[in-house]
Amino acid sequence: MTAGVIEEVVQKAQRAKAAAARLATLSRAEKDRILLAMADAIEDRAGFILEANARDVQQAQNRKLSSAPIDRLMLDEKRITAMAQGLRTVAGLADPVGEVIGGWRLPNGLEITKVRVPLGVIGIIYESRPNVTVDAAGLCLKAGNAVVLRGGSDAINSNTALGHVLTEAGLPEGLPEGAVEIIETIDREAAVQLMRLTDYLDVLIPRGGGALIRRVKEESTVPVIETGEGNCHVYVDASADLAAAEEIVVNAKCQRPGVCNAAETLLVHRDVARQFLPRVGRRLVELGVELRACDRSRQHLEQAKPAVEEDWATEYLGLSLAVKVVDDAAEAIAHINRYGTKHSEAILTEDLANARRFTREVDAAVVYVNASTRFTDGEQFGMGAEIGISNQKLHARGPMGLAELTSYKYVVTGEGHVRA
Amino acid sequence: MTAGVIEEVVQKAQRAKAAAARLATLSRAEKDRILLAMADAIEDRAGFILEANARDVQQAQNRKLSSAPIDRLMLDEKRITAMAQGLRTVAGLADPVGEVIGGWRLPNGLEITKVRVPLGVIGIIYESRPNVTVDAAGLCLKAGNAVVLRGGSDAINSNTALGHVLTEAGLPEGLPEGAVEIIETIDREAAVQLMRLTDYLDVLIPRGGGALIRRVKEESTVPVIETGEGNCHVYVDASADLAAAEEIVVNAKCQRPGVCNAAETLLVHRDVARQFLPRVGRRLVELGVELRACDRSRQHLEQAKPAVEEDWATEYLGLSLAVKVVDDAAEAIAHINRYGTKHSEAILTEDLANARRFTREVDAAVVYVNASTRFTDGEQFGMGAEIGISNQKLHARGPMGLAELTSYKYVVTGEGHVRA
Repeated sequence: MTAGVIEEVVQKAQRAKAAAARLATLSRAEKDRILLAMADAIEDRAGFILEANARDVQQAQNRKLSSAPIDRLMLDEKRITAMAQGLRTVAGLADPVGEVIGGWRLPNGLEITKVRVPLGVIGIIYESRPNVTVDAAGLCLKAGNAVVLRGGSDAINSNTALGHVLTEAGLPEGLPEGAVEIIETIDREAAVQLMRLTDYLDVLIPRGGGALIRRVKEESTVPVIETGEGNCHVYVDASADLAAAEEIVVNAKCQRPGVCNAAETLLVHRDVARQFLPRVGRRLVELGVELRACDRSRQHLEQAKPAVEEDWATEYLGLSLAVKVVDDAAEAIAHINRYGTKHSEAILTEDLANARRFTREVDAAVVYVNASTRFTDGEQFGMGAEIGISNQKLHARGPMGLAELTSYKYVVTGEGHVRA
Repeated sequence: MTAGVIEEVVQKAQRAKAAAARLATLSRAEKDRILLAMADAIEDRAGFILEANARDVQQAQNRKLSSAPIDRLMLDEKRITAMAQGLRTVAGLADPVGEVIGGWRLPNGLEITKVRVPLGVIGIIYESRPNVTVDAAGLCLKAGNAVVLRGGSDAINSNTALGHVLTEAGLPEGLPEGAVEIIETIDREAAVQLMRLTDYLDVLIPRGGGALIRRVKEESTVPVIETGEGNCHVYVDASADLAAAEEIVVNAKCQRPGVCNAAETLLVHRDVARQFLPRVGRRLVELGVELRACDRSRQHLEQAKPAVEEDWATEYLGLSLAVKVVDDAAEAIAHINRYGTKHSEAILTEDLANARRFTREVDAAVVYVNASTRFTDGEQFGMGAEIGISNQKLHARGPMGLAELTSYKYVVTGEGHVRA
């Protein structure tokens, strides 16, 4: 690791830590004013941002990146407006900091209140979408946190330009210097260095593909919130309303197949396999879905390829679906708990006992009864915005909004109390 | 690392993971029955436990350990009874699992409830007190978690015997096999192996000295909850009730100096230093406290040694106290935020503005106004029992009781809902 990389990362983390102390004491009015100034600046400086983005896109084309990552990377007026609107939405959300989330009086008269406070300094390591820079900065700021952002090298010019615009707009409105720090070096060691800064960072959130998340989880000594991997299942029980089930399966698989809350495996109770599979299979194949099915389901799915063991554990993030016939809800639950990633899991049933059993026994952030897994999302959940979807159990689970970017402290008030 | 050590640790973690799935579905009645059977067994099998403990004590004496660690290690009838009573207390606490901690209806009619669930498998790495084995097993069990316990090599016979008694008593009452696993090898590599088992462990809690905690934080890829390091301060403001302040300072330093919530540094406003320091200094010196003071405080403390930079950052865990005169509350807050360990911090003041400022700006798990730092404790806080005191910000902060040993899941119920 070169000295220059270490120095940049450490200095920026130190600045962020200094900023965090001041951010924690900003009022909601101050934070909202900064957010709105940032939103305006993104629109006002669109030319500057788009020019930087054009350089990233050009470099990506020179390196012969395929069209999907280039599309994710590219900004235009519409995406600029969307980023600015995102910041305005965050400004409109209630301030989580200072919320009293509990309180009681002890037998000795001591009064305890439990109050939300910022986490402190949040590190985010992410891949190529430049909008993450703006979304993450806005959410972290509203929750009173400083943020150190380490985006993908593909988007380095866009991210640096966005960071510059956000800070320049925020400073005159009271944004503490160091509140939004962008790691500008594209050296991979910068991310490794970030994972070791336990003296400055309170938490690290990786956003991106499974490989990135596993690497951060493996290497980071800073506490990590794992996000995003979703090998989600829909289980069609014997008692399911099959017409509704068909719509839900199609929605969970096809409405947006590239995201973590899309379904990857369909489990069907053996008693309804003959009735359900041919009709849902036809719909799915018409929509371009490739089916990978167990032997029992292939009897009802002439279009399907045989599934192999690996299919049960795969998050396709595309138009493929594994299909398996199970004997009962117990087998479905066991399958999900074995192969799932603790993200979003659905049972479609009219049977109350099976619904209760599924929601209690399936180990996942979100368990659905008679609804599509696609609802696992901060905006859908009414949080206003999200920084990601956690699939670990520590700290936050499922969609993470502003509250999930906070910690708490206990304030204890006495009148000369000493312990006996 | 020898194959045998890896095998033992992995097998026990696998058994714990299998047990966790069953533990999550036990009712409160089932868990309490198991806890009460365990409590009775500890008393019934006192002879067996004391005999194993005597071997540990004998080995410690052979290795010429000093009296303090031998005292911590030693069990007697009274300590046996205390462990059993601890389990009965936990049985009397409400079940955190299944508690609905939130819920709302979305505009589209979807109903969301947020329900407490167990964390899963908790690893605990701890030092020599054998009572931790019983306390931790009881709390983890009540919160529906399996636990893998890795105690110190000094207490290996005691811990193994206790684990045996707990499991033997629990199994006939419905304790799943693997719910309480004791790592029996004394090889240090067993702890290292435990820190890498991200497939089986949901969280690792180190309990013990600073060196142990730093090592786990540095090496673990399993998420860690940092506990226990407490460099706590008492700040006596210009407006403090000095008679009450004297009692609080003496209590915070002397009532039990070897624990994490004891005070290590006294900060005194310059306007009351002349009046306050001589009298509190005399009391403290009479109680055997060694004072290490800054130049300004030494003018009022003839008994004090000069403090060096290192004193401000030291958790003495004994009868020493650093003393510093500060110009105002702002300097006190800055000193605490620089040298503190985010544990417990107190201001003694009659001034509302300073009290508000201190409680907002000091970054610690528990901030006190006019009370001793010694109250930071799960039992004192009314949690019934505690697994430790977290001084990190992620997941849980301050005393951790049963609720802090849980996660949550969202249960979402619809009637054929699909995402538009």
